[in-house]
Amino acid sequence: MEGDPVLQLRVFSLNCWGIRYLSRRRQERVRLIGDSLCREPFDLVLLQEVWSEQDYGLLREKLGSCCPFSHYFRSRVIGSGLCVFSKFPILDTLLYQYSLNGYPYMLQHGDWFCGKSVGLGDNEQQQGVMATSSPLQLHAEYCRDKDTYLAHRLVQTWELAQFIRHTSHAADVVLLGGDLNTQPQDVGMRLLRGCTGLRDAFAEAKRFEGCKDGCTLIPDNCFTVKTELQPFPLGIRIDYILYKTESNFAVKCEELRTTTGTAPGQDIPYSDHEAVMATLHVRRQERPQGASAAEPLPADPVTEAPADAVTEALAEVRVGLQGARRRRYAAGRLAVLALLLLLLQAAAALGALAGWGAAQPFPALSCCLLAALALGILLGATCLHLLHVTEGRLLQAAEEEMRMALPLRRP
Amino acid sequence: MEGDPVLQLRVFSLNCWGIRYLSRRRQERVRLIGDSLCREPFDLVLLQEVWSEQDYGLLREKLGSCCPFSHYFRSRVIGSGLCVFSKFPILDTLLYQYSLNGYPYMLQHGDWFCGKSVGLGDNEQQQGVMATSSPLQLHAEYCRDKDTYLAHRLVQTWELAQFIRHTSHAADVVLLGGDLNTQPQDVGMRLLRGCTGLRDAFAEAKRFEGCKDGCTLIPDNCFTVKTELQPFPLGIRIDYILYKTESNFAVKCEELRTTTGTAPGQDIPYSDHEAVMATLHVRRQERPQGASAAEPLPADPVTEAPADAVTEALAEVRVGLQGARRRRYAAGRLAVLALLLLLLQAAAALGALAGWGAAQPFPALSCCLLAALALGILLGATCLHLLHVTEGRLLQAAEEEMRMALPLRRP
Repeated sequence: MEGDPVLQLRVFSLNCWGIRYLSRRRQERVRLIGDSLCREPFDLVLLQEVWSEQDYGLLREKLGSCCPFSHYFRSRVIGSGLCVFSKFPILDTLLYQYSLNGYPYMLQHGDWFCGKSVGLGDNEQQQGVMATSSPLQLHAEYCRDKDTYLAHRLVQTWELAQFIRHTSHAADVVLLGGDLNTQPQDVGMRLLRGCTGLRDAFAEAKRFEGCKDGCTLIPDNCFTVKTELQPFPLGIRIDYILYKTESNFAVKCEELRTTTGTAPGQDIPYSDHEAVMATLHVRRQERPQGASAAEPLPADPVTEAPADAVTEALAEVRVGLQGARRRRYAAGRLAVLALLLLLLQAAAALGALAGWGAAQPFPALSCCLLAALALGILLGATCLHLLHVTEGRLLQAAEEEMRMALPLRRP
Repeated sequence: MEGDPVLQLRVFSLNCWGIRYLSRRRQERVRLIGDSLCREPFDLVLLQEVWSEQDYGLLREKLGSCCPFSHYFRSRVIGSGLCVFSKFPILDTLLYQYSLNGYPYMLQHGDWFCGKSVGLGDNEQQQGVMATSSPLQLHAEYCRDKDTYLAHRLVQTWELAQFIRHTSHAADVVLLGGDLNTQPQDVGMRLLRGCTGLRDAFAEAKRFEGCKDGCTLIPDNCFTVKTELQPFPLGIRIDYILYKTESNFAVKCEELRTTTGTAPGQDIPYSDHEAVMATLHVRRQERPQGASAAEPLPADPVTEAPADAVTEALAEVRVGLQGARRRRYAAGRLAVLALLLLLLQAAAALGALAGWGAAQPFPALSCCLLAALALGILLGATCLHLLHVTEGRLLQAAEEEMRMALPLRRP
């Protein structure tokens, strides 16, 4: 069934932690990453959190000789932070921005502003093998015990799975690399892998070298927040290289490596995350005798998904939906109260002007300040209300889709 | 080369003009649409501007017997307004929201709030033919002579073309139906058709019946704004059914019809747009002897696109980019001025508290009002600045992609 190896693909993925003014020793690290990628060239480099276009420009300059083709995916205010560098021409691109991505008022988390997305670049590799390579990032998990964003991240995972199912038919090899902010045993990861048939390079690798258990956020890295990793003395694995094949190809992961904290010969690591590096062998497979040339889309979108993962995700999305409704009502109530206060003040002012009251009970200054405050609250609460209406709608849409997908799984 | 007809597909597309509280005789028209679709059943019904979920519910109820499968695409505050009804099961869905879609402060236009999108539903039709059907809508054209949103609509068209190229490989037949707010000879339409290879059912139809020149916004419709159609006495054609095939199938449009204003036996039309109805014949084609089973993606994404359309779109996007930059600077300047005013007032207030000034030059009430106003302007201008920063980024991204696509076309 199997022919000779037709293609060796070396893939590099790293969350670069390149937040301007916030990430420590950013420019130094970006230069280090560029130099390292020049020394050991890869066919595909999938980077995340490259928020600054100057950093992207610097990397493009450095990688000009080994990965001359590149694309920077722009979105929202700050950008998606995603970029892809390739040894072979990038023929076509597409950016898919998740519908839900945190809240604009959570400034300290900032996910909303950067428009977390999955990018997609089509490459023609050697010998006519088409590959789509996608750098991606999901919403961060700021607190594992009380993960406020779990529902948002699960909706992102669900949309990501839909996106992969719809776009993967255009290529022979589908490659994803990125920071999924999800551990291998988490419901999100089971959902994604189950719904798409994507395989985890770490689990499939013939040889592995790097941090124990393939961890990519480790206490030994001087940039990680040690307190966050306290429950995990070895660290956690949240960065992945995932792959699958379409048509008549088979992929095997020959080797997987991770960086291990401090960069060789330096006093700092490349990032607060560890890089993941995979060597994949793509082989052409003969089509079985009598098989049809046309390969229809699998009839059941969650054929491979454990119903448990969908059920679990569904429960979390429902919890999120309840929260969104609570916040929507709270914001709506606040807006109504502010409006009532404004109307009351307007009535009092009109009364004073018409001379109904004997004397104005409050000084004009306090009245004006109170009116300005009420107006501010009214505007703010209305915006918040609309935000949570939208959040509720999108969570409900995902909830319905998951619910619809479930009966197909039941025996 | 051609076998027997394997499938007849009857497709219906209509912009339903279903804006709650604003669209005239909305509920009556929705009932009319439902009744009409029950009398003459279609295999696929692609509707736009169904903003109210109650309307969708009513249609779902009415179409339960002829099109039992349906999906409502939710997005943003109001929703995408898109829904699809199908005679055959919908196996998988995906919603792609365009990155640019007007401005939130243009409340009278409201496009921003509804998150214009393209939906996608996978159907397995009879005899194993896979179809993806996409209802879609692009940003409205409010004034043809001074079309402020042309750049946004062209970026949407560009993203739509990318989306179709990436998702169309999953199906045998790709169907799009919707209100493109673009006339057939416009740059957007040439760009879309050229970049995707989509064919226009009106241009390809063997038989046609309906409004002259296939117009879908006609002066005879009592809901259209007559002044907007003054330069076009016959009306304009902005609603389309477009199609293409992948793999081993060929599609021909046997018949195309449009409604012609007032609904039969009623005093009102179904909507302010005319419905488009196509009968397509899908035939299985034999693969030529010696042809490879694997069909690679076309190497050049704009192989079929006239370079002229890309050049023209590029010029319009650049005009849009200049506008976005102007608006960004204006908002930024305003924010800085408001901040200076606030600082000045703070200094004056501190001075008065410290007893530096002999007497306060302004009454406290005026000072407070001015400070509140300055604060409001500062907040508003900062939001506007961020909005136009994002707009500029996204226009620049599209400009770069179009520019990159161009040299491939040049001899």
